[in-house]
Amino acid sequence: MSAPRDAGDPGRLARRLAEVRLFTERLCEPLAIEDQVVQSMPDASPVKWHLGHTTWFFETFVLSPHRPGRRPWREGWGVLFNSYYVAAGPRHPRPERGLLTRPTVAEVAAWRAAVDEEMQAFLLSAEAERPGVRELVELGIHHEQQHQELILTDLLHAFSRNPLHPVYRPGAPPPSAGVPMRWREHPGGLVAIGHAGPGFAFDNEGPAHRVHLEPFALASRHVSAGEYADFVADGGYDRPELWLSDGWAAAQAGGWRAPLYWERGDGSWTRFTLRGELPVDRAAPVTHVSYYEADAYARWAGARLPTEPEWESVAREAPVEGQFVEDGALVATADGGGAAPFGAAWVWTASPYVAYPGFRPAPGAVGEYNGKFMVNQMVLRGGSCLSSRTHLRATYRNFFPPHARWQMTGIRLAR
Amino acid sequence: MSAPRDAGDPGRLARRLAEVRLFTERLCEPLAIEDQVVQSMPDASPVKWHLGHTTWFFETFVLSPHRPGRRPWREGWGVLFNSYYVAAGPRHPRPERGLLTRPTVAEVAAWRAAVDEEMQAFLLSAEAERPGVRELVELGIHHEQQHQELILTDLLHAFSRNPLHPVYRPGAPPPSAGVPMRWREHPGGLVAIGHAGPGFAFDNEGPAHRVHLEPFALASRHVSAGEYADFVADGGYDRPELWLSDGWAAAQAGGWRAPLYWERGDGSWTRFTLRGELPVDRAAPVTHVSYYEADAYARWAGARLPTEPEWESVAREAPVEGQFVEDGALVATADGGGAAPFGAAWVWTASPYVAYPGFRPAPGAVGEYNGKFMVNQMVLRGGSCLSSRTHLRATYRNFFPPHARWQMTGIRLAR
Amino acid sequence: MSAPRDAGDPGRLARRLAEVRLFTERLCEPLAIEDQVVQSMPDASPVKWHLGHTTWFFETFVLSPHRPGRRPWREGWGVLFNSYYVAAGPRHPRPERGLLTRPTVAEVAAWRAAVDEEMQAFLLSAEAERPGVRELVELGIHHEQQHQELILTDLLHAFSRNPLHPVYRPGAPPPSAGVPMRWREHPGGLVAIGHAGPGFAFDNEGPAHRVHLEPFALASRHVSAGEYADFVADGGYDRPELWLSDGWAAAQAGGWRAPLYWERGDGSWTRFTLRGELPVDRAAPVTHVSYYEADAYARWAGARLPTEPEWESVAREAPVEGQFVEDGALVATADGGGAAPFGAAWVWTASPYVAYPGFRPAPGAVGEYNGKFMVNQMVLRGGSCLSSRTHLRATYRNFFPPHARWQMTGIRLAR
Amino acid sequence: MSAPRDAGDPGRLARRLAEVRLFTERLCEPLAIEDQVVQSMPDASPVKWHLGHTTWFFETFVLSPHRPGRRPWREGWGVLFNSYYVAAGPRHPRPERGLLTRPTVAEVAAWRAAVDEEMQAFLLSAEAERPGVRELVELGIHHEQQHQELILTDLLHAFSRNPLHPVYRPGAPPPSAGVPMRWREHPGGLVAIGHAGPGFAFDNEGPAHRVHLEPFALASRHVSAGEYADFVADGGYDRPELWLSDGWAAAQAGGWRAPLYWERGDGSWTRFTLRGELPVDRAAPVTHVSYYEADAYARWAGARLPTEPEWESVAREAPVEGQFVEDGALVATADGGGAAPFGAAWVWTASPYVAYPGFRPAPGAVGEYNGKFMVNQMVLRGGSCLSSRTHLRATYRNFFPPHARWQMTGIRLAR
Repeated sequence: MSAPRDAGDPGRLARRLAEVRLFTERLCEPLAIEDQVVQSMPDASPVKWHLGHTTWFFETFVLSPHRPGRRPWREGWGVLFNSYYVAAGPRHPRPERGLLTRPTVAEVAAWRAAVDEEMQAFLLSAEAERPGVRELVELGIHHEQQHQELILTDLLHAFSRNPLHPVYRPGAPPPSAGVPMRWREHPGGLVAIGHAGPGFAFDNEGPAHRVHLEPFALASRHVSAGEYADFVADGGYDRPELWLSDGWAAAQAGGWRAPLYWERGDGSWTRFTLRGELPVDRAAPVTHVSYYEADAYARWAGARLPTEPEWESVAREAPVEGQFVEDGALVATADGGGAAPFGAAWVWTASPYVAYPGFRPAPGAVGEYNGKFMVNQMVLRGGSCLSSRTHLRATYRNFFPPHARWQMTGIRLAR
Repeated sequence: MSAPRDAGDPGRLARRLAEVRLFTERLCEPLAIEDQVVQSMPDASPVKWHLGHTTWFFETFVLSPHRPGRRPWREGWGVLFNSYYVAAGPRHPRPERGLLTRPTVAEVAAWRAAVDEEMQAFLLSAEAERPGVRELVELGIHHEQQHQELILTDLLHAFSRNPLHPVYRPGAPPPSAGVPMRWREHPGGLVAIGHAGPGFAFDNEGPAHRVHLEPFALASRHVSAGEYADFVADGGYDRPELWLSDGWAAAQAGGWRAPLYWERGDGSWTRFTLRGELPVDRAAPVTHVSYYEADAYARWAGARLPTEPEWESVAREAPVEGQFVEDGALVATADGGGAAPFGAAWVWTASPYVAYPGFRPAPGAVGEYNGKFMVNQMVLRGGSCLSSRTHLRATYRNFFPPHARWQMTGIRLAR
Repeated sequence: MSAPRDAGDPGRLARRLAEVRLFTERLCEPLAIEDQVVQSMPDASPVKWHLGHTTWFFETFVLSPHRPGRRPWREGWGVLFNSYYVAAGPRHPRPERGLLTRPTVAEVAAWRAAVDEEMQAFLLSAEAERPGVRELVELGIHHEQQHQELILTDLLHAFSRNPLHPVYRPGAPPPSAGVPMRWREHPGGLVAIGHAGPGFAFDNEGPAHRVHLEPFALASRHVSAGEYADFVADGGYDRPELWLSDGWAAAQAGGWRAPLYWERGDGSWTRFTLRGELPVDRAAPVTHVSYYEADAYARWAGARLPTEPEWESVAREAPVEGQFVEDGALVATADGGGAAPFGAAWVWTASPYVAYPGFRPAPGAVGEYNGKFMVNQMVLRGGSCLSSRTHLRATYRNFFPPHARWQMTGIRLAR
Repeated sequence: MSAPRDAGDPGRLARRLAEVRLFTERLCEPLAIEDQVVQSMPDASPVKWHLGHTTWFFETFVLSPHRPGRRPWREGWGVLFNSYYVAAGPRHPRPERGLLTRPTVAEVAAWRAAVDEEMQAFLLSAEAERPGVRELVELGIHHEQQHQELILTDLLHAFSRNPLHPVYRPGAPPPSAGVPMRWREHPGGLVAIGHAGPGFAFDNEGPAHRVHLEPFALASRHVSAGEYADFVADGGYDRPELWLSDGWAAAQAGGWRAPLYWERGDGSWTRFTLRGELPVDRAAPVTHVSYYEADAYARWAGARLPTEPEWESVAREAPVEGQFVEDGALVATADGGGAAPFGAAWVWTASPYVAYPGFRPAPGAVGEYNGKFMVNQMVLRGGSCLSSRTHLRATYRNFFPPHARWQMTGIRLAR
């Protein structure tokens, strides 16, 4: 990661930390205790676990190394809330996070409060001025923001498995008029890619380097749910020639007939959202599609998915504007998927997630943050209606396996 | 099932119902909300589900058929809390019971209270005098008692998966002196088997019939944990010649090296219980062994497991005395596993669970209670330290698959 | 096992052995080398393996212990052809038998010839007079006959997986007229069960003992394919109330809609057999049904399956006549499933496979022959059109898991 | 694919076809019929299937479309020997190829002979001059060569599962002295990548395009078995920090402790090869490692794997020389892994297998040859000691999933 943007104003970093931590708890306010315990599939985690894990992150990587003699809050919790940091010690098996009834939600909340208080004091202390400390705190803030989005996507998945269809937040945004899709041409050539500072970035966004592009065009907006419904109606899920071989196998094995959470009602599609069961809004960006579906759709549409550097070379010219979690819609809307490359729904790129030339993971346990996942995943770009605006930038690289559908993932075409 | 024992005193049945229902809730008092949500394996169910299912039983089989125009408490809950009664409509998939965060524990408690109140009123009404109604209520009471035991065994399993080792009830009974095992001879011959009334029995306990037995001897007490530890120390888990072929395969696949919940400490065994981690009490009955382990132990000991009619022909001469859930120990003790055939730990018999000659399931949906499970299971007899004394009798047939270990199951030898 | 029937005439036992061994090879004459290599599922074995295993049996249990200094035919083959005898040393994993291309079919044939020659010489030698030797040879003959039936059933399964539908023996017996089913009453009471000699029997057929039976009736013939087709047409596979719970789960998981090998043609059923694809012969006994299907059919028909002692107490009064492999039909026919309790198709009993009172396995490795499988299986009785007439008797106990369908298994009703 | 190299000389293409087809059969000469039937894992295929599939390729894509009225050789064989061409009709399930005993090896050989004869006649006919025909034949020749390598790798895997350790070809090449590894620097910059003709290439080798490279260095030879053994001895398989997260999981799940086919003998390593069990030759290139192992080794060695364009920009300056199948060694040797980038062992690149900019699959069913596999695989370059020299070139892209180990795959480092 690079230098934090708040260098020189300790209070500002502390305030941002407090704000972001508070926002996590705000997201949990509508939830019953029961909602925070379950794990609906191995890829997802209980809300309670997210609340603990993000706290563990600050305790383990910031407080413990810099406060001599400090003991962890509770014996044995480290194992439970370590996600995948081998260098930080043993880890409870991921698929069993939903079996842990203790510590309770209240006990985790008490831990959060204690660590938050300790972090505020620490950030005003001399130890916080040590090299690397503020970068770690900045990393922790962004880490917290990533888990905010995961809390919402994991919760949506859990609620979707309940025949009672619980509603996270009542009410739905009105459907809005769509806009036509246009192609925006780019001349190609040598382009600069990757993060070159200033400001925070994850280690996987660098080193900055040059990439040679052929001329290409990028769509002016996301693929809409209506366009995707046309693909479905045209037999998109019945035509293997449109699919990658692994994609077709995944679709058959999973019984996929439409995006995740879509249900066919009487002559029309509905979808399950954080706002409950809603009709599919044809103008809104399609979401909850896998890479395989995005790729098949693009082939059907006579186009393709953009590569990472194609998307980035367009996005770096644009402001980080669009539909984010701060807007509160919690579903992608046509407004959000308008002209901006950012927000509304992550877009699958055609680029597998690999290291940039000269990539070196950050030293220490946080070096496991990104690098060890650089295989079997595809890069996503741009953020979604569940991402924080302050969390995103043009060089940001998100990544998921090509079969993943429970994230807020959509499609933007290239050719 | 046969005629209820409270015929002629409507108030007495209502009081018993109230007592048994209240006891269920008493069992849940030490639990956090979180403890009541999880399902630690497909064979187990969340505590919340048990609380709802036993309530659904009375609503579905007693109240709804006999109260014209009555609507279920909440739309859609029937699907969630129907266990396996096909004739009672669709069922939520059993392995996904732990994904249901709603209805909440509080909502289920409200349902319980409403149904309890309605049942009390109903039992004093004329409709309760209709043929078969009191038998159904009696069945519901015994059904509730079965789920009381399951609440405790399922909870123990869930707690055992948590590295923090939660304790359900603190403190442990003192280890007690053991007694020597003696053989009690039985001359064999034609014996009467099965329930012939009066009093309640499940349909699978009849019809009463005769069985011809060869002379045999039954042990005077359960196999103790110390005796079982000797089998372990003698390489019991490393000697395939002691095991049934399927048992050996199960032991290898599961990595079994001792009874479930046993851990090897420094030179001695500990075990996880509802009272937390305890040393193994050598004099106490061994528990949490599968049929396969019980069978292998018996072969090692130069004996065998008793058959159903052998056990029953001995037990019918004895009072229903022993160690039960009312005693509050929650772990099998040497006192409990003394002279009595009842209590402390269910004993695996050598008898597969099949219908008695002339068996007919009860009419209606409750006919699914027992009959359709009569394959691939072994019969257990006698009850355990987690069973209610009022729930047991000499003809009672419990049944589990031969690999099951999470129940309070032990061994009594025959020869 | 008991005393052999040929005591006193060494030449007669040698001749019987030669005949039975030769019959095995006759069964393989129509086969290509390729047909003898494959293993179409873990429960089945390659023909080549059967040929080797039955040879290994004589080498390991007869020749090697009684010929000092004798070396096995080839180093390393023992591991490959040991089925499940732990006491006889390590075993190649059963599911991988179909991966073994060597030894070749010709190499196994050479081994068979050498062992056959050695056995003939041995049986005329003084060593063959030692106690237990002739019993072991007799056991080996019956073992060979069991594998003859398995060769045919395993081959049928392998051929069924080939879309080209290979034919083992061309031509089909003509359909024959059926006979009405009648009930034959039995008064019940104390009956004698199990083998009490003279003549050969497996260890699991004893000890002889008495069983008390209620009065019952047994059907005069097998359930016919036409009767079973009526069950199918009546929605038998769509009505869970007819099925055991495990049976319903197996039927759903396996997509069962009819007996194994049945295919629905244009308005009628066909079935795949050792004589290729044939129309279903309505009068012939239904075959290739699991215990679960037999049980569901019986419930649909308002009857039940017989227990072991019920079947045996009827069969012991009848001669061992019926349709056997010597007749050469290789499919069950109406004539075969006529009045006789023997032949045509094994009948599933309602009895789980357990030890008789006082059962002791034979000493030594052959003690693993039967006893260690006494769990999770159901007993079948009577033999089939693929069994040798000389292999059967009224006390014979065959056993398979309740889901098994690839054997020549059928139904006879009781009530 | 591009224009064939034999344009203008029909006889030359026919001769090359005949030579390549004959070479396939030569490879099978040492095999028993039994060896040609088995499928030792779903990724592998029986030799007999390879022999049939390559014949099916010519019949289906060359003869049938261009010979009006021509019927397939045998009804139903198309389904059996179609690998994955959805546009060419239904396909027998890949994991069940080893269950097919018919057609026999002899029947497939007769088919091969008939199609070979027909192809020779066809290539001298006027129809063979039609546009695209010669390109398809050229594709068929290269397709045949790919399956020649697969025949050997699949056979090695099948033999490895047999405890008798069959030997494909006796004798072993002598161990040779190794050479030190040097780094060869490359200045980077814009490089030309991909096939730009003349001569044959697969569709996935184009379009030719430019890529911008940072300066890098490529190793002068493959990683040797001795170097890899040092990694093993240094705890390479016990240190998760060296591994990609998915790689570590694969290694744990598969129990990987060394390359596939390595066995630890008394103080030294042996390996199973087509020449039987041999000592590990420390100077020879390591083979049978997965991408995960190659990547972990590179990290341990303080280096990394080369990307596709890095490797190609070095290899295009070199002649296609090295150790190939024509040399007959069948194991990688130090001589083969010397200065040349080609031969001995395929090298894993750090590049996931994706389409080049502007990639279009070939029209028709052969368009499924490459494009639909462009996900979840890594690119390998250079060929191996089991590849034909005439099959390779600098732009050639091979691809396998990152866990695959049964191919002749090795490592060349970059930095």
